[in-house]
Amino acid sequence: MSKTSLNRISEILGISKSTVSKALNNYADVSPATRKKVQDLAQKLNYKPNIFAQNLRSQESKIIGLIIPEIVHYFFSTILLGVTETAEMYDYSVIVVQSDDDYKREIKQLAFLLDKNVDGILLSLADNTIHFNHLKDTINQGVPLVLYDRTSKLIDCNKVVIDDVKAAKMATQHLIDIGCKKIAIIRNQLKSQGTIDRHKGYKNALLENGMLYDKSLDFEGCDFSFNEGKKAGNKICKDHKDIDGIFAVTDLMAIGALEALKEHNIAVPEQISVIGFSNWFLTQITTPNLSTVDQPGFEIGKTAFKLLHQEIQNNKNNVKEPSKTVVIPTTVISRESTK
Amino acid sequence: MSKTSLNRISEILGISKSTVSKALNNYADVSPATRKKVQDLAQKLNYKPNIFAQNLRSQESKIIGLIIPEIVHYFFSTILLGVTETAEMYDYSVIVVQSDDDYKREIKQLAFLLDKNVDGILLSLADNTIHFNHLKDTINQGVPLVLYDRTSKLIDCNKVVIDDVKAAKMATQHLIDIGCKKIAIIRNQLKSQGTIDRHKGYKNALLENGMLYDKSLDFEGCDFSFNEGKKAGNKICKDHKDIDGIFAVTDLMAIGALEALKEHNIAVPEQISVIGFSNWFLTQITTPNLSTVDQPGFEIGKTAFKLLHQEIQNNKNNVKEPSKTVVIPTTVISRESTK
Repeated sequence: MSKTSLNRISEILGISKSTVSKALNNYADVSPATRKKVQDLAQKLNYKPNIFAQNLRSQESKIIGLIIPEIVHYFFSTILLGVTETAEMYDYSVIVVQSDDDYKREIKQLAFLLDKNVDGILLSLADNTIHFNHLKDTINQGVPLVLYDRTSKLIDCNKVVIDDVKAAKMATQHLIDIGCKKIAIIRNQLKSQGTIDRHKGYKNALLENGMLYDKSLDFEGCDFSFNEGKKAGNKICKDHKDIDGIFAVTDLMAIGALEALKEHNIAVPEQISVIGFSNWFLTQITTPNLSTVDQPGFEIGKTAFKLLHQEIQNNKNNVKEPSKTVVIPTTVISRESTK
Repeated sequence: MSKTSLNRISEILGISKSTVSKALNNYADVSPATRKKVQDLAQKLNYKPNIFAQNLRSQESKIIGLIIPEIVHYFFSTILLGVTETAEMYDYSVIVVQSDDDYKREIKQLAFLLDKNVDGILLSLADNTIHFNHLKDTINQGVPLVLYDRTSKLIDCNKVVIDDVKAAKMATQHLIDIGCKKIAIIRNQLKSQGTIDRHKGYKNALLENGMLYDKSLDFEGCDFSFNEGKKAGNKICKDHKDIDGIFAVTDLMAIGALEALKEHNIAVPEQISVIGFSNWFLTQITTPNLSTVDQPGFEIGKTAFKLLHQEIQNNKNNVKEPSKTVVIPTTVISRESTK
């Protein structure tokens, strides 16, 4: 490695390092002739400023940390892309870590990123995170933190979310609009805010349409996986032949349910209509194609980075703004599974 | 932000900064009593070493750069996970950028990472990268570089790959073993080494089984997408009713072909058997489930990081080892689409 340093330029030209530095930064107290001489040589030698020295001076890394519950996950991939592409426009780079959707790992990964002196953190809460001291400590230390997608009302910071209540209500309303009379919900446990809100949206839609919420149509799985969706689908096929619509709180659960219906020779959408949630790529290639709610990951990632960047700037300028929550709009996408 | 600095410890205890630093680093020329005094106070004040100063001293960032052709992509997500999880064990973090599978973006992203002074680079070639000066320059500058998945024989560096010829041959052999007599290949253009090799593996399997390679059974798409697979599937349904086996060079192309066959009411696997390549998650939830070749992304990412880490250590110790290529084994996974 033979990197050109300030030292080398200073030696060759026989002028002090501080003059070289000033010349490279266009300071007025260096004569135009010297400035030109230094800059020409720097260009010739392909000089690049030592970023470590720059970081030490500025106490900035121009790196942010992104904590993702699950990296191998379509929706989170689109968020990751939104974050990296937007960060790049601001000359920031992004360190990515996974919390494995686990509270303890989340704490560990947060500490890992803070040790790396990132300028700020983007985080989506792990499914079992119900204590928030690690986040409050981060905020109290003055490190900018933006929560995206899975957030909590108990933390005072900038957030980017979708309106899960509204989105789930729209999905359920879609089933009602096409004539479904007995609509089941397939979901994971009521722990994360997202699931709580989607459950609420489902109930709200029923109530607004004069339909009673029926506990026996409410299917709870251990998680929001394909397998748990399939299990619920199997129960519906065996014990609830009167159900004519299913709202699943994730696409994976919906696709699991589709699989169960197929195995029981129940026609979708003729006998049962199914709608999922998220608009994963794979909803376009299932049989039948899955209706769903579009959850715009790229937009969420982009907005989260912009909020974080603004907060980093505010910190530098000693500006304090109240926390805000940006809500990204969602839409229902009607495909073959609901007609 | 009120971070505890060396300065502060030095002020409180009334000893020099260099003594504080030595005490924190357990140097023998500081008395045990002073060492204890400094370390106790550091712990009490929650002192963390200034990573920017450490980086400047060591000229190491403990950060590596990962260039991915496409972030929203199942296989590359599994590689990303393998890299980040392994890096973490070595206390390294990973900056992720996307090349958009484009040569010019690849050059730009490489420069972006080098500007950030990463300690090394992991890169999978963009589909249209056929010139390699940007990579040769990186190597010549002494920056450790490991290529993964999509590599080129024209670059002398460490590589992690699968044996695409062998894997494609195994996939084709699987079709032959179950009785297919007329086997088509669906692929993108013969540009990337991966596609060239999978094409070769297909031909090798035919030849070894005394079957002739027939150009009319060789379907070339513009890319390796679902849509191009579907187009090829449509052509097969219309013009080549004698085909009884399809090997697609990607799962997406295979799933596109499945969709076309379904629309033409051709039974899979009864009339045509279909095998894909990669073992994406979605192959488990198509109808029928897709047989495929497992391409172990996590293992590729893990091995790539380990090679890079070794090279970083070698550089520090002025050790020069010849470049090596690690081949990660693949297996055929037989599911419903081939029986």
